[in-house]
Amino acid sequence: MTKQMKLAAYFNPTGHHVASWRHPRAQRDAHQNIEHYVEIARTAERAKFDMIFLADGNATRDADIEAISRSVQFVAHFEPITLLSALAMVTKNIGLTATASTTYNEPYNLARKFASLDHISHGRSGWNLVTSGQPAEAANFGRDGVKEHSERYSRAREFAEVVQGLWDSWDDDAFIRDTKSGLFFEPDRMHHLNHKGEHFKVRGPLNVPRPPQGYPVMVQAGASDEGRELAAQYAEAIFSPHLNIPAAKAYYDDVKGRMKAYNRDPDHLKVLPGISVVVAESDDKAAEDFNTLQSLIHPIVGREILSTMLGGADLTPYPLDEPLPDLPLTNASRGHFESIMAMARAENLTIRQLGERCAGARGKNSIHGSVKKVADYMEEWFAANACDGFCVMPPYISGQHDDFCNMVIPELQKRGLFRKEYEGATLRENLGLPRPPSRHRG
Amino acid sequence: MTKQMKLAAYFNPTGHHVASWRHPRAQRDAHQNIEHYVEIARTAERAKFDMIFLADGNATRDADIEAISRSVQFVAHFEPITLLSALAMVTKNIGLTATASTTYNEPYNLARKFASLDHISHGRSGWNLVTSGQPAEAANFGRDGVKEHSERYSRAREFAEVVQGLWDSWDDDAFIRDTKSGLFFEPDRMHHLNHKGEHFKVRGPLNVPRPPQGYPVMVQAGASDEGRELAAQYAEAIFSPHLNIPAAKAYYDDVKGRMKAYNRDPDHLKVLPGISVVVAESDDKAAEDFNTLQSLIHPIVGREILSTMLGGADLTPYPLDEPLPDLPLTNASRGHFESIMAMARAENLTIRQLGERCAGARGKNSIHGSVKKVADYMEEWFAANACDGFCVMPPYISGQHDDFCNMVIPELQKRGLFRKEYEGATLRENLGLPRPPSRHRG
Repeated sequence: MTKQMKLAAYFNPTGHHVASWRHPRAQRDAHQNIEHYVEIARTAERAKFDMIFLADGNATRDADIEAISRSVQFVAHFEPITLLSALAMVTKNIGLTATASTTYNEPYNLARKFASLDHISHGRSGWNLVTSGQPAEAANFGRDGVKEHSERYSRAREFAEVVQGLWDSWDDDAFIRDTKSGLFFEPDRMHHLNHKGEHFKVRGPLNVPRPPQGYPVMVQAGASDEGRELAAQYAEAIFSPHLNIPAAKAYYDDVKGRMKAYNRDPDHLKVLPGISVVVAESDDKAAEDFNTLQSLIHPIVGREILSTMLGGADLTPYPLDEPLPDLPLTNASRGHFESIMAMARAENLTIRQLGERCAGARGKNSIHGSVKKVADYMEEWFAANACDGFCVMPPYISGQHDDFCNMVIPELQKRGLFRKEYEGATLRENLGLPRPPSRHRG
Repeated sequence: MTKQMKLAAYFNPTGHHVASWRHPRAQRDAHQNIEHYVEIARTAERAKFDMIFLADGNATRDADIEAISRSVQFVAHFEPITLLSALAMVTKNIGLTATASTTYNEPYNLARKFASLDHISHGRSGWNLVTSGQPAEAANFGRDGVKEHSERYSRAREFAEVVQGLWDSWDDDAFIRDTKSGLFFEPDRMHHLNHKGEHFKVRGPLNVPRPPQGYPVMVQAGASDEGRELAAQYAEAIFSPHLNIPAAKAYYDDVKGRMKAYNRDPDHLKVLPGISVVVAESDDKAAEDFNTLQSLIHPIVGREILSTMLGGADLTPYPLDEPLPDLPLTNASRGHFESIMAMARAENLTIRQLGERCAGARGKNSIHGSVKKVADYMEEWFAANACDGFCVMPPYISGQHDDFCNMVIPELQKRGLFRKEYEGATLRENLGLPRPPSRHRG
């Protein structure tokens, strides 16, 4: 059998596009509508997606209230681990991956929740490990500011080590439940972790039996040098942000290359670039739908996201329908700033137009077209070894999620690029990842 | 209509009795068997229980490994909030109350999870607020020891205040989702908490919409003076531990009396004493089943629990089948110690026999008998205004849970003491509790 893609379904409440909630085929109250999530989870499972993926933050996004009040992403929504525990009961095969921060949690608490989700779902859980870098998040946890990037990653690395250690607290066969002798578990199959590190001191054992998968699948999205190193050491799936094949391939080769130092098989890490797809019967119809979506971007929302990408430059003094004025370089990354300024100059774009360009897919890879065009695009990336599959981010849900499942998935299956049936019962089995043995049992 | 009881179903994995897992009608692997929980939750809902209740701790119980390895309670099991999120999807009316500690959590994280559970369940969540006093718990969170009782309660009080403040972050009608104007929420219906207290500094808003119930139902189990005061201020249900009507009534009157100081209606707090029931066709058959259960208590387990109740006295040097020797008073509560010593002397009980007495119901109220005897007992407490209902703790599950639902519930219904149908859709409605208005809308 030819190699096949792995696919994650990334569910922002109403969709990935900043104006998704205004689209007639979006579920406007998705952020607090559990029936909606049941429906889209089941659709994703019928389409044989490897997993559902939920992003997370520990604060309502903090920016100009005029813009935030017109946005849906990162405002107020279900908490991911509770939501996935619920969805575990209405699905059978699809993986359930939640984002959870290492910055404002305790490893014992987080290890418990993911282990419990793994038991509830019979081995379908995944943990997207992130650090929290927003000042609005720090303010919800009594901190006066955000810690340095490298300090957050130092904590994250030790956090992952502790969590995996806690998951090994009980051997797989610890609970013998022998009613005759009265022995519920074998004492020598329970292990104290006794971790003492720079950031944590954790005795253990975890008060949850070892997860069915050994460890829930470890997911990461590290782009920085430290992020890539952490991914090479721990990650089994990565959601990457690249916009073209050369950049994606360079990243792919770099991260997989770093795995050797940790004695890991490069096949045991699946790199899944994010892609937001508008598909339709024809290229023209897809373009039309995409333009409709773009036209729904409120200019204030576009301006706010443009401003964020320009490193926080205040654009409110300038007229929306006049060209972007020359701005001094701020603390934004120089590359980002200069590429936006260059685009503005080359096409003489107004602030409104630039805002729409930047806001729509919020910096992520976005394509639109017929089924053939979309499938060709995905096949090209996959054939170039720029990825192991994709993290599909429907721009509006359920409309474009349904369309992707009903139109693109069958085409990928026809080409032999995607499964027709789940290979196994657990997320690991479907992703082709080994089940980690306990450190205590070799 | 006459006043009716409120009933909670307390699910320890295999049951409340220390030897439950050895009983042939218990589900031995309940601690990691989600299908078992689905079944017993549905049974409880068919019986019209107000709520399911799950206890919790943040560590595997730490004591003589010879005893712990023969125990099921507080060893390794589902995490309660993930478990109840799952059960929300397979039930429709029954309340879902989880224990969560204020000692090793952050209020922002906990407020999110319960708000999310309340949305997932359409208004059926409850939070049993506790503090964590076990050294084994402290050791899982990098603490060298347990904080003083009054310091834990000071933190707990402020924790509750912050959590309720965060639940008021969004007005009930904040999300207008006006596609035409592009306004997703009304900016003046979002509120920063800006809490600055002794223990916490939390800005808000919470990134979850206001819970359907306004606040999830607040549950408490405070027995100490500080616990009673916290309950009088915040609790809407209490699980109390009393063994007889006079003690229960004194507690009931005391806690309800304290509510006036907080301008609260005593009816808005339901006091539910814990009761572990073995019911059968006849008193004799119930006694027989109870004796079977007692005979399954392993002597080492009985001795360990006896030792704990005697304040940690080391009993391992003494023969199990000889009378308890004279022991010096330890740091156990004097009352507890003296009553156990008196019982031992009065009946010339051996260590084994004393262990069985203490271990079975683990200090909780335990009765056995025919349907009539059990219903009479419950009616007597209720008629004496010693309680507003009960927290029913089946000694083994599902056996005695099924029997209580199939035998005792219909008898209580026949006597007009318990509902035949749910009164409302939310836990608050079924408990007869008001929905708290937002502090920002009066």
